[in-house]
Amino acid sequence: MAKTVPTRAIPASAIEHWSHETDVVVVGFGGAGACAAIEAADAGAQVMLIELASASGGSTALSSAELYLGGNGGTAVQQACGYSDSSDNMKAYLKAVSGANGDAAKIDHYVDNSVGHFNWLVSQGVEFKHSEYKERAIMALTDDCLLFTGSEKAHPFKDIADPVPRGHNLYVEGDNGGPLLMKILTEQVHSREAVTVHYDSRVLCLIENQGEVVGVMARLGMEEVAVRANKGVVLCAGGFCMNEDMVKHYAPFYAEGLSPLGNPGDTGTGIQMGQSVGAAVVNMQECFVTLPFYPPSSLTYGLFVNDKGQRFINEDAYHGRVGQASIAQQRGAANSVYLIVDVDAYADYEKLSYLGAPIAATGETVEELEQELSMQPGALAATLSLYNEAAERGEDPAFHKSAQWLRPLKLPLVALNCSIGFGAYLPFFTLGGLDTLPTGEVLTPGRDAIAGLYAAGRTAAGIPRTAAGYASGMSVGDATFTGREAGRSAAMRCA
Amino acid sequence: MAKTVPTRAIPASAIEHWSHETDVVVVGFGGAGACAAIEAADAGAQVMLIELASASGGSTALSSAELYLGGNGGTAVQQACGYSDSSDNMKAYLKAVSGANGDAAKIDHYVDNSVGHFNWLVSQGVEFKHSEYKERAIMALTDDCLLFTGSEKAHPFKDIADPVPRGHNLYVEGDNGGPLLMKILTEQVHSREAVTVHYDSRVLCLIENQGEVVGVMARLGMEEVAVRANKGVVLCAGGFCMNEDMVKHYAPFYAEGLSPLGNPGDTGTGIQMGQSVGAAVVNMQECFVTLPFYPPSSLTYGLFVNDKGQRFINEDAYHGRVGQASIAQQRGAANSVYLIVDVDAYADYEKLSYLGAPIAATGETVEELEQELSMQPGALAATLSLYNEAAERGEDPAFHKSAQWLRPLKLPLVALNCSIGFGAYLPFFTLGGLDTLPTGEVLTPGRDAIAGLYAAGRTAAGIPRTAAGYASGMSVGDATFTGREAGRSAAMRCA
Repeated sequence: MAKTVPTRAIPASAIEHWSHETDVVVVGFGGAGACAAIEAADAGAQVMLIELASASGGSTALSSAELYLGGNGGTAVQQACGYSDSSDNMKAYLKAVSGANGDAAKIDHYVDNSVGHFNWLVSQGVEFKHSEYKERAIMALTDDCLLFTGSEKAHPFKDIADPVPRGHNLYVEGDNGGPLLMKILTEQVHSREAVTVHYDSRVLCLIENQGEVVGVMARLGMEEVAVRANKGVVLCAGGFCMNEDMVKHYAPFYAEGLSPLGNPGDTGTGIQMGQSVGAAVVNMQECFVTLPFYPPSSLTYGLFVNDKGQRFINEDAYHGRVGQASIAQQRGAANSVYLIVDVDAYADYEKLSYLGAPIAATGETVEELEQELSMQPGALAATLSLYNEAAERGEDPAFHKSAQWLRPLKLPLVALNCSIGFGAYLPFFTLGGLDTLPTGEVLTPGRDAIAGLYAAGRTAAGIPRTAAGYASGMSVGDATFTGREAGRSAAMRCA
Repeated sequence: MAKTVPTRAIPASAIEHWSHETDVVVVGFGGAGACAAIEAADAGAQVMLIELASASGGSTALSSAELYLGGNGGTAVQQACGYSDSSDNMKAYLKAVSGANGDAAKIDHYVDNSVGHFNWLVSQGVEFKHSEYKERAIMALTDDCLLFTGSEKAHPFKDIADPVPRGHNLYVEGDNGGPLLMKILTEQVHSREAVTVHYDSRVLCLIENQGEVVGVMARLGMEEVAVRANKGVVLCAGGFCMNEDMVKHYAPFYAEGLSPLGNPGDTGTGIQMGQSVGAAVVNMQECFVTLPFYPPSSLTYGLFVNDKGQRFINEDAYHGRVGQASIAQQRGAANSVYLIVDVDAYADYEKLSYLGAPIAATGETVEELEQELSMQPGALAATLSLYNEAAERGEDPAFHKSAQWLRPLKLPLVALNCSIGFGAYLPFFTLGGLDTLPTGEVLTPGRDAIAGLYAAGRTAAGIPRTAAGYASGMSVGDATFTGREAGRSAAMRCA
């Protein structure tokens, strides 16, 4: 295990001089930390915000910053676009996609306050166009707002909850939501006199007094100091995808062949600081992973198959869900995964795709493709024959891809090699972290709150719990929301 | 989370009266605890062994108590049966089956001392017949000793390490190894004057002094007392399969529809006590699970398929590996899993099987079977046709089942319903626990040893790390071995 912070917190009795005193220390200035600082200040607290890098941003600034929001009858955008979205409907969806990994209390709290969070973001100056982007896409490259970003319209979820789009894209052209969101939140932070920001600074460890977190040791610029936090410390230091040892230790399923997606500070220090005072970690084995095979959306007409020629997922599911299933194939009996498409579906692949999957084989006949892919003769032919015959009728009895994406594949065929290690882009980030209450308090393994300690964003295990149930906008939605919760809880604690 | 022990340990300063003093406290009198007590006593320590139940046994007594041992040229039994087994070969196998979940340092230490452990068991009075049981089986029901208990002869492991049998069955008829092993070890414990055993007694929590574990609070009979442990406390309190909340929290993949396999004390209290002083847990998401489809071994000629008619595993793999793959199918896109066999293979099923899987369908034709199983017409037919055609040639190009188990399936066919919730016996137990050194010291998240605290058996994460790589005998082999290691380490600590 990489030891990036001391294993044990320092006892307050060992501190000879407190050089700074504040109410709330926020560790990390990404989306979660920004919102924690704003809310703590607005609740009347003095805040010290400490950031490793020379500027704010974190992984939120690197993201598309879609925000997964809805319920309560719908956000202003959902309503303007003609969607109503009940809280029950949104909860049903989130609980279904989260499965046994989900935290029902967190989902309920998030959904109940989701439109409130949208309105708060607007109040901070975040603009959303009242428009919908209707193409199947990872993100809107126009300035349109609302789009389907998960598996809402795909089996099995379409039969569990009414499909409603909940991805909210900022009012900006291109994939520029993340920098814009962080610019707005950063300005809000700096506009508050109660917040002092320290860049190029590092929190070294927590200081505790008989089980209560009372401050941090920090290097502010060049100086190593003890900072007293009268109300609490909020850990918003990101996940641990950049810490190879931690990934191998906690999330071995994702430890080989994938590309970490995040900022260089995602080394798990926030999680380790929590552990240093007895905090529990949860969901550490789970990561987001994706196989970003759309755009072009036409590839959804294709078939994902393993090296036995077997399908394994409805191809109209969210790219992360497909990615997770694809990795699972390769952690199981399969050595390879291919996306089989015909020429019509392939058309814009080279122009529009982020996938980077090379062509593994092309075939004028299925037999030729099987041979080039070293498949058992007849295996892929059987899969294609079953698929095409049913697709002709608008059905997919095996995997239930929606009729919209059913079209018999025509010869000639192309096989894209989506296997790990052959060039396809397979990014991941971590979805495990400190166990917290919905209001941000960090918990022990027995689920008692640790006095004075809070966590938010990917330092905590939040709403998104599995790639199989992920939707774009879940992590930034959760990070900004839980940041606010944790910041407010800390500021209002009776210490 | 079920709170079966206090979240925090008690500080030594709060203890007014130490009513007992000893060198080593051992918590739990199963296989690990027995071996810990014996070795601690033999290393010169006074030992107090505290057991919740009215008798020794733990889950070891409930098991078949096969012991997975080898390497170093082979145990006396392996050699007598004509097998040599190099340590490199055994390490290669264990590392391959453990995959990214494995702890290489533990595997190396276990293998290097594996024949030594066999000899130690013999020295304690455990007898092994120098004979081999050659049938594919979960356990030998004769008094024969040596058998293949894992996936050594199955793809892909047969090409990674030379297949050698390492399951060592005690010299006793029937499935009676567990009670016999515990009888022998219990006699050894009671023969040592340095060991005091308290039955019907419970350790309530640890007592710590500035990061060092110095004793336990315990209820000995009716009395609640503080017990000072001058050298250390060894946690051998089993896993957590009986704690539904913990399983749901840590191992959600296994949280629904499976049957816990263990003793009623497997409630995770040992793990929780470790956590109460800052110990790390690892591999908590993993469980052993099985689908015990042999005996009769003839069912290995059959095909496991999901509800899309697809195979997903080589059927000659270990029953736990098949079980894990079967559960994974149902956590993925499949709703059901069937074992398709012909009448020849089915023959002794009702007489010999532990599986309990009901017949889902029978068919004079494949079409009839597909219809009864509500499969897409042609799906199972395609699978069977590909399989039979290759099996005729002694090949299985898709899943690499060994030629020994390849035989075209003949009509009529039977489908056994192996799906979760339809009667098939799907037992599980947990494979996650406290992170420890190979010598038993319990570790913090930063992998520092916690002074005075040790763990062994399923309270720790040991050699067995995944059902996909399990072999019968791994857990009892590991529990007895790590019990000895932890007991000796505690006894020899310079406190």
